Amino acid sequence: MPRYKLIIEYDGAPFVGWQRQANGLAVQEAIETALHALTGDRGAIRGAGRTDAGVHARGQVAHADLTKDWRPDVLRDALNAYLRPRPVAILAAERVAHSFDARFSAVRRHYLYKITNRRAPLTLEAGQSWLVKRRLDAGAMHEAAQMLLGYHDFTTFRDSECQAQSPLRTLERFDVMRTHEEIHIFAAARSFLHSQVRSMVGSLEHVGSGKWSIHDLVAALEARDRRRCGMVAPPDGLYLMQVDYADENPAD
Amino acid sequence: MPRYKLIIEYDGAPFVGWQRQANGLAVQEAIETALHALTGDRGAIRGAGRTDAGVHARGQVAHADLTKDWRPDVLRDALNAYLRPRPVAILAAERVAHSFDARFSAVRRHYLYKITNRRAPLTLEAGQSWLVKRRLDAGAMHEAAQMLLGYHDFTTFRDSECQAQSPLRTLERFDVMRTHEEIHIFAAARSFLHSQVRSMVGSLEHVGSGKWSIHDLVAALEARDRRRCGMVAPPDGLYLMQVDYADENPAD
Repeated sequence: MPRYKLIIEYDGAPFVGWQRQANGLAVQEAIETALHALTGDRGAIRGAGRTDAGVHARGQVAHADLTKDWRPDVLRDALNAYLRPRPVAILAAERVAHSFDARFSAVRRHYLYKITNRRAPLTLEAGQSWLVKRRLDAGAMHEAAQMLLGYHDFTTFRDSECQAQSPLRTLERFDVMRTHEEIHIFAAARSFLHSQVRSMVGSLEHVGSGKWSIHDLVAALEARDRRRCGMVAPPDGLYLMQVDYADENPAD
Repeated sequence: MPRYKLIIEYDGAPFVGWQRQANGLAVQEAIETALHALTGDRGAIRGAGRTDAGVHARGQVAHADLTKDWRPDVLRDALNAYLRPRPVAILAAERVAHSFDARFSAVRRHYLYKITNRRAPLTLEAGQSWLVKRRLDAGAMHEAAQMLLGYHDFTTFRDSECQAQSPLRTLERFDVMRTHEEIHIFAAARSFLHSQVRSMVGSLEHVGSGKWSIHDLVAALEARDRRRCGMVAPPDGLYLMQVDYADENPAD
């Protein structure tokens, strides 16, 4: 069975998240349904990041094993036709080796979190950014963010439902940049805990608004106590942007 | 009656355009209704740009004469409360002199047109960009765009319903820039004819796809014939970004 790597974009708003749930349609399920309609295959696909309900993706990656050989561009276009009108698009399809696993071969995940820092409600970005009305000091947020870089026990910034065996992770990038009223927060790591980015961003918001000092953020991290998390930022502003793999995954 | 300048953002998708129409809700009408609910005043507001159905704004400007004095930030926040849940937001309100007229005092309008140049359907940008599947040469489009700069008879790029007395306009900026699959086209002029930006962008698309040479675009301009317009780009990708005024419009 040839294996295909899919690069996927979606608006997370109408979905219960990436992963199948009893309570509604998952992105994974929408793609599996389209694959089944197109190919007759009933296999499951595996994604690199299990994004929560409402979280978006610009570069989610999944792999699928299909019975038949497909020209990658034909597979992409046909899947997109079957996905319509759901806000999910296959940006690219590529034949890969069986050693490639979208989840376990990934060496780095890149997330973007968007904050719109203004009084006025969102219009064009409704559901696609976090509206924060208090004036945020993005410089202070960036400075604080640097304190979370490196290898730490991120228990404070981990959902209580998180199923990862270890709370230890290495945060490789955590940058905060403001352009006028838009604040963009870039996070990268080999892997993240459940709700880690949103928990860290929610806590950074406390630094930006002056409620917390940088020391308070460090103390929260060091406490390794979920109750010390500032808040969990809403899913609206979070985007899985890119997943990196060690090699170019040539077809086998 | 104190006069207020309003800076307005909206998602044009659910509206029949800026200006009141018999066939549905206009942005102008949504704001006038909110103003009436807030102040009891029944006056009309005047906008700088009469955007068509589906066209968006990041910086539309309008003026309103109100009976009562309002603190500008209170007026902004209260209007936004009354506008909810429509995708219209007052970004700023400011007290201005009666000599200020949002439409007639404007010295420059800035528009952005967004094209997404890829095979895959739009998800997060649905309704907010023009999806063009043919590969476009943005460099050729930019080169061609420069031929339209300056003072010309823009009859070719003017809607047949356009009510302006003269088809003569001076195009001050028309730049095409690509970043990956996104093509952004920036247009600025003192004023534009009806559908001028969309007509010029639709014709530039012909240059980008290779259907037209730069000479074909120039010949279309020089023909001063609406039938020579390449095509009219859809409203989805068009944004009224900013309106410039000669002075700082101090309150009287």
